[in-house]
Amino acid sequence: MSFADRLAHAVRSKQSVTCVGLDPRKAQLPAPIRDAVSGDSPDQWAAAYTQFCHEIIDVVADKVPVVKPQAAFFEQLGPAGMIALGEVIDYARAAGLLVITDGKRNDIGSTATAYADAYLGGDSPWGSDSLTVSPYLGRDSIEPFAEVCDSREAGIFVLVKTSNPGGGLLQDRATEGQLVYQRVAELVTELNQDRVGESGYGPIGAVVGATYPEQLVELRQAMPSAWILIPGFGAQGGGAEDVKPGLDANGLGAIVNSSRHIIFAHARDPYRESFGDQRWQDAVAAATDDMNAQLANR
Amino acid sequence: MSFADRLAHAVRSKQSVTCVGLDPRKAQLPAPIRDAVSGDSPDQWAAAYTQFCHEIIDVVADKVPVVKPQAAFFEQLGPAGMIALGEVIDYARAAGLLVITDGKRNDIGSTATAYADAYLGGDSPWGSDSLTVSPYLGRDSIEPFAEVCDSREAGIFVLVKTSNPGGGLLQDRATEGQLVYQRVAELVTELNQDRVGESGYGPIGAVVGATYPEQLVELRQAMPSAWILIPGFGAQGGGAEDVKPGLDANGLGAIVNSSRHIIFAHARDPYRESFGDQRWQDAVAAATDDMNAQLANR
Repeated sequence: MSFADRLAHAVRSKQSVTCVGLDPRKAQLPAPIRDAVSGDSPDQWAAAYTQFCHEIIDVVADKVPVVKPQAAFFEQLGPAGMIALGEVIDYARAAGLLVITDGKRNDIGSTATAYADAYLGGDSPWGSDSLTVSPYLGRDSIEPFAEVCDSREAGIFVLVKTSNPGGGLLQDRATEGQLVYQRVAELVTELNQDRVGESGYGPIGAVVGATYPEQLVELRQAMPSAWILIPGFGAQGGGAEDVKPGLDANGLGAIVNSSRHIIFAHARDPYRESFGDQRWQDAVAAATDDMNAQLANR
Repeated sequence: MSFADRLAHAVRSKQSVTCVGLDPRKAQLPAPIRDAVSGDSPDQWAAAYTQFCHEIIDVVADKVPVVKPQAAFFEQLGPAGMIALGEVIDYARAAGLLVITDGKRNDIGSTATAYADAYLGGDSPWGSDSLTVSPYLGRDSIEPFAEVCDSREAGIFVLVKTSNPGGGLLQDRATEGQLVYQRVAELVTELNQDRVGESGYGPIGAVVGATYPEQLVELRQAMPSAWILIPGFGAQGGGAEDVKPGLDANGLGAIVNSSRHIIFAHARDPYRESFGDQRWQDAVAAATDDMNAQLANR
């Protein structure tokens, strides 16, 4: 089954559009995980990241359709971290979750194919269902990924309109009758042509930040066949009303990512008081349930 | 010493602006390297890539200032490849070469810092002098890299005008009085302000393809304090006359990358006939000498 159709199936069966971002950061790990690290070796931190992410996966596997590990934090640990990333991806897939690796990779021709080969599909070294991809290099930097998506029933999410304040520097520039991000959205739609599956969606998704709700409305219409990955919910300021326009009439077509607000819920109210570090897994469960409920009330 | 000053020193002492791209690809490895791989395990291929790159480094260490390993081809092998990438980087630095890891990484805030922490500076997991970075996410995706450059005397090369035919889709769009790539060039210049060292150059470099000589002339002027990394020489069609405008009056300010045309020189004329697979290292030496000579005649 294509990635787009698998994602539609997962959203329906879990009754959730929440994507849990797996962004392990040394300083924010709950005390029981952090305190188990003696010394400062990459191997020890990698083991801590693996345990942390595996326990999160145990908690959320029945609650959400998809998780999104952030490659940068694993890469920061060196090769030991990249081994951990692979373990986390495999563990999530074995738990019935779809996996989007957030790597924002990009290059041209056979180099782009090498990245796709590294991350896309269950048999690849980091066997993800999908990968985030940056578009600055243009169409010939996205097509090699799209072709690997075809052969491996995988997907990509192309950065279109990102959630950060500085994203507008290039993305919002007015150019030849359209903004730069609108041209990228058009490219996404072009690449999905002839690739749309039963769900009505194709393998080429788009990243659109929750912090730009008006643009989300516009981009939902401009990319009718693209799954939209919406970051910026929670910690970055986007709310439930901001992200709901990303969904289609059937409640499909968008997934909403939260990283810190879920995985480090033990450190913020109201979960800190109820659970704290010692019951951090319960904080993750409660924060996930709350996010699902917020996104369901529509 | 800052990265920009180290690069200036290296270009002067080697009397060369050639950057050798280390892009190992299974199918193109010379027979003596390829035939030593029995089976198809990532560990075996990683060992082959390491040996191949180490032998190239042995050949070029006295001939060129800098090498540029392409992360994608190592990543394609999974964690074993990422271990090999670290070995190659360390080996190159031990041989007195500067190392630019070509990873085209990008993200925002602390995630960008994590990438910078992974690649920049000799004590990082992949201890490179510099890293290529993609700018689609805007200024706040480049600044975290710039700050790590400051603390570790490292550098980055921001994609400005890439060598591929499709690069124009976004880069060449006319917008608010300037093209998109011109805005990125402006950002490079802004970020180098207050960061310029003795050589006259700062840590924020730029990638400008050899396939666009007119834009190279323009961008040399627009970014007076930026080292320019020029890909697209040789295999992609750029010639010596196309890249020379990237250099300043002192012969500094630009390095010219060649990957396939040097590392796989054994497979193309005239080196194929003289050396072939069995003497592939001599082909690398001859192709490097020839490129140095082409770029020196100015």
